[in-house]
Amino acid sequence: MPKRSDSLDRMFSALADPTRRAMIERLARGPANVSDLAKPLNMSLPAVMQHLQTLERSGLVTSRKVGRVRTCRIQPKRFDAAQAWLARQRAHWEARFDRLDAFLEKSED
Amino acid sequence: MPKRSDSLDRMFSALADPTRRAMIERLARGPANVSDLAKPLNMSLPAVMQHLQTLERSGLVTSRKVGRVRTCRIQPKRFDAAQAWLARQRAHWEARFDRLDAFLEKSED
Repeated sequence: MPKRSDSLDRMFSALADPTRRAMIERLARGPANVSDLAKPLNMSLPAVMQHLQTLERSGLVTSRKVGRVRTCRIQPKRFDAAQAWLARQRAHWEARFDRLDAFLEKSED
Repeated sequence: MPKRSDSLDRMFSALADPTRRAMIERLARGPANVSDLAKPLNMSLPAVMQHLQTLERSGLVTSRKVGRVRTCRIQPKRFDAAQAWLARQRAHWEARFDRLDAFLEKSED
């Protein structure tokens, strides 16, 4: 079995839902409270709270309650791991295509 | 409800598993057949085939059977959508932080 990376599992899993991606798209533009998040999604607060919990478990979003208002924020640094993993795979196949190009050019000489 | 994007759902969902990420890491280095994929994972062929089907449904990997050998390949272009979505969110919050910086600099004048 490959080394588990629960952190990447939770992050990619959190991103695999259109509602949660819409919440992230909103929060990328600035902090928002739960009602702000719920409104454009046309969803109940409990449903939004459930998605928020998944986002918080992934570390992509944090929230803090002051009085009766829970404010949610994106955690930019946590996105680095997901982006870095994707970029690393791309680097591998691009290096392979470069080697293939070099080989084909050499064959043409 | 936000606009569904089944394609992103399937892609991020496919990436949310350490075995499937290990298969992608292997395929990023070059095409491989199912036995090649199974060996380092220490998994049965049927288990690997099941993960392969999830990867194929996401479009991140394709496979082709010639005779008795099924060869799997990464589909680089399909990764663009996932990377583009992440990059777009980053662009939003970076623009916001730039505006905040500009505001703070102006306040200091």
